[in-house]
Amino acid sequence: MTALKPSWVASANSADTPFPLNNLPYGVFSTDGTSPRCGVAIGDLVLDLAAMEGDGLLDCNGALQTGSWNAFMAQGKDAWARLRAQLTAMLAEGSADQSRLTGYLVPLAQAKLHMPISVTEYTDFYAGRNHAFNVGSMFRGPENALPPNWLHIPIGYNGRASSVVVSGTPVVRPNGQIKGANEDVPRFGPSQRFDLELEMGAIVGQPSSGQITVAEAFDNIFGYVLLNDWSARDIQAWEYQPLGPFQAKATATTISPWIVTAAALEPFRTSTPEREKPLLDYLAEPGPMLYDIALEVAIAPAGKGETIISRTNYREMYYSAAQQLAHHTTSGCPMRVGDLLGSGTISGPTKESRGSLLELSWGGKEPLTLNTGETRTFIEDGDTLTLRGVAKGDGYQIGFGDCAGQLVAARPLRT
Amino acid sequence: MTALKPSWVASANSADTPFPLNNLPYGVFSTDGTSPRCGVAIGDLVLDLAAMEGDGLLDCNGALQTGSWNAFMAQGKDAWARLRAQLTAMLAEGSADQSRLTGYLVPLAQAKLHMPISVTEYTDFYAGRNHAFNVGSMFRGPENALPPNWLHIPIGYNGRASSVVVSGTPVVRPNGQIKGANEDVPRFGPSQRFDLELEMGAIVGQPSSGQITVAEAFDNIFGYVLLNDWSARDIQAWEYQPLGPFQAKATATTISPWIVTAAALEPFRTSTPEREKPLLDYLAEPGPMLYDIALEVAIAPAGKGETIISRTNYREMYYSAAQQLAHHTTSGCPMRVGDLLGSGTISGPTKESRGSLLELSWGGKEPLTLNTGETRTFIEDGDTLTLRGVAKGDGYQIGFGDCAGQLVAARPLRT
Repeated sequence: MTALKPSWVASANSADTPFPLNNLPYGVFSTDGTSPRCGVAIGDLVLDLAAMEGDGLLDCNGALQTGSWNAFMAQGKDAWARLRAQLTAMLAEGSADQSRLTGYLVPLAQAKLHMPISVTEYTDFYAGRNHAFNVGSMFRGPENALPPNWLHIPIGYNGRASSVVVSGTPVVRPNGQIKGANEDVPRFGPSQRFDLELEMGAIVGQPSSGQITVAEAFDNIFGYVLLNDWSARDIQAWEYQPLGPFQAKATATTISPWIVTAAALEPFRTSTPEREKPLLDYLAEPGPMLYDIALEVAIAPAGKGETIISRTNYREMYYSAAQQLAHHTTSGCPMRVGDLLGSGTISGPTKESRGSLLELSWGGKEPLTLNTGETRTFIEDGDTLTLRGVAKGDGYQIGFGDCAGQLVAARPLRT
Repeated sequence: MTALKPSWVASANSADTPFPLNNLPYGVFSTDGTSPRCGVAIGDLVLDLAAMEGDGLLDCNGALQTGSWNAFMAQGKDAWARLRAQLTAMLAEGSADQSRLTGYLVPLAQAKLHMPISVTEYTDFYAGRNHAFNVGSMFRGPENALPPNWLHIPIGYNGRASSVVVSGTPVVRPNGQIKGANEDVPRFGPSQRFDLELEMGAIVGQPSSGQITVAEAFDNIFGYVLLNDWSARDIQAWEYQPLGPFQAKATATTISPWIVTAAALEPFRTSTPEREKPLLDYLAEPGPMLYDIALEVAIAPAGKGETIISRTNYREMYYSAAQQLAHHTTSGCPMRVGDLLGSGTISGPTKESRGSLLELSWGGKEPLTLNTGETRTFIEDGDTLTLRGVAKGDGYQIGFGDCAGQLVAARPLRT
């Protein structure tokens, strides 16, 4: 395990900062009166890369001027490595660049964070073994919990890119068609079983046409974000047969503001679990392609303190993002820069490590008691849900920034 | 029913041309050495609107210079009406503009046609009553053919925008995970049950955030294309539970090259069929929002003549595109300019009017005999599938141009 890389930015050398020099996550920020610009987080500051490129201190062919990381990602692995090496050198303890960089540093507390990428298309997977087992158990009983294909295919479906928002964006409780178990006909109204899903999002940084291998897929992933795949369970239950979730998953998907690059996560690579059934060759991993990232979910009622309701780890996934991306291309499906792949809900084996309220409250039957004394089965108006993740190194950690959203009341129905 | 509008372009006055003055469909074309440019089809010619705007004969704020109709669509209904009125006047019999327009006309035979829009996101529906009944009958028996939600919801799922291609683009037979009924484990190989789906595509021309009504949805639809939702039935059968079709539908979706505007189709509006169960208010149509468009499917083995294998009509749909779009927004899902909505397979009530080979060959059990004497259950390498559609007026017709694609052999497997 690598150690902390010291920086002349003092706050980047703390064991608690999510943004040491080892991390260098990319985001898009603005301050009062400025337009969104590319930046990198370091300690409690953000370095204005757009301004640096504008002044000739960096040269990414103008990609840093676009208010999104898509153009830079499109430049490919050599460009990715070059910028990371440059920034690492410039921000390292003892760097001769300190004096000329100081003017480009902005306190994170003053920065408004925007979507780091323009999401081209969004795919969501269902690749957490425990989550699939829990959900399957609730609906079909434990003996039939896993669908027959589950141990062979990284099951996925296409989501809605237009609904992806950055952390901090309020989420409006959706209306939808709902039919209760004891109702004869559906009605149209607000979801009563609105839920979170704790996921990681992988960002495709290079295009492909035709099938690619797992190794190629791994190389094409630029980085990772935390991802909350908000889900209306009651809308989903009525709509999802036979073609899958649609409006139940289209209200919002929240991502964390900082893209943690695959390069930064390199020391934390870990293997997917032992296979219960042999995988087909095209899904075989040539090396460890998951990451050891500790994850947690917090819920805070409006104006009140939070309760951590789940602690789990990204290594619980049965399929890696590289396997998912490789599978995504089998039919010839073209992948593009900015495609976002949700991992699927990440639940651990214990009750306390489940990644959704559906599982935590076992379908609403076992309410959770919060620190405030209130109980929850699903999300209530005013609740803020926050996902956090850290990869823990030797005396340092790599974080993503909070992935948070507050649920606000449903809008009036329109007919 | 309106009559033919005469044009000084002689070929536009034929009762057989798909492109009379009444139509004015928008496309993107190039000729040798030119980049893709916006144009409108008139008779057997295409009018170079990009060049006309460049020379000051039209002014759409540069939207016609972008090689796509997205920027123009974003300008909204007034701009749509203005350009259509201008072109109608300029191309009408007796117009004073004839002499200065002649230089902007290019024979269609010399034009290469490109994607008319950049597809932002692609959604596919399952809204044909006969298709859903046929497919359901094959898998669950006629008594359980329609899922319980089908008569209440325009069932849809998100497709893959990156796979949408323009007519004429070859389609590569997909590889995928397949498990035969008598096989214990899946294998990875070429689909053996590759199929077409005859659909119409509706193009969203105005953005929305939050729920919109059916009337608003109707107004937001810019126009229509023919759409072939190529489908690998064997891949789909193994992958689609529980989250719907994924790689089975991601190989390609072919659209016709010309966008026929809602304005051109106005005389052909017709109502959705009588409801078997009352719809929820938010799905009620304030007027006829389907269209009477005669459709056909032809298949031609490599180097041989074609056989028409299906004749049906867009009015067979149970839900209109306006209803589908309105439903799409119920959860708050933002819609954007360039979103494409597939209608779902359009099958009529008779065997000869089924819109897929799955239905025409009844799951492969009843092979079709072609004019060549060959038989087909599913598509074979080298076959070209062509969709055609016309709305029939009084002495004229409105066409879309062929929506065609040839299937080529699968690529080698990669592991």
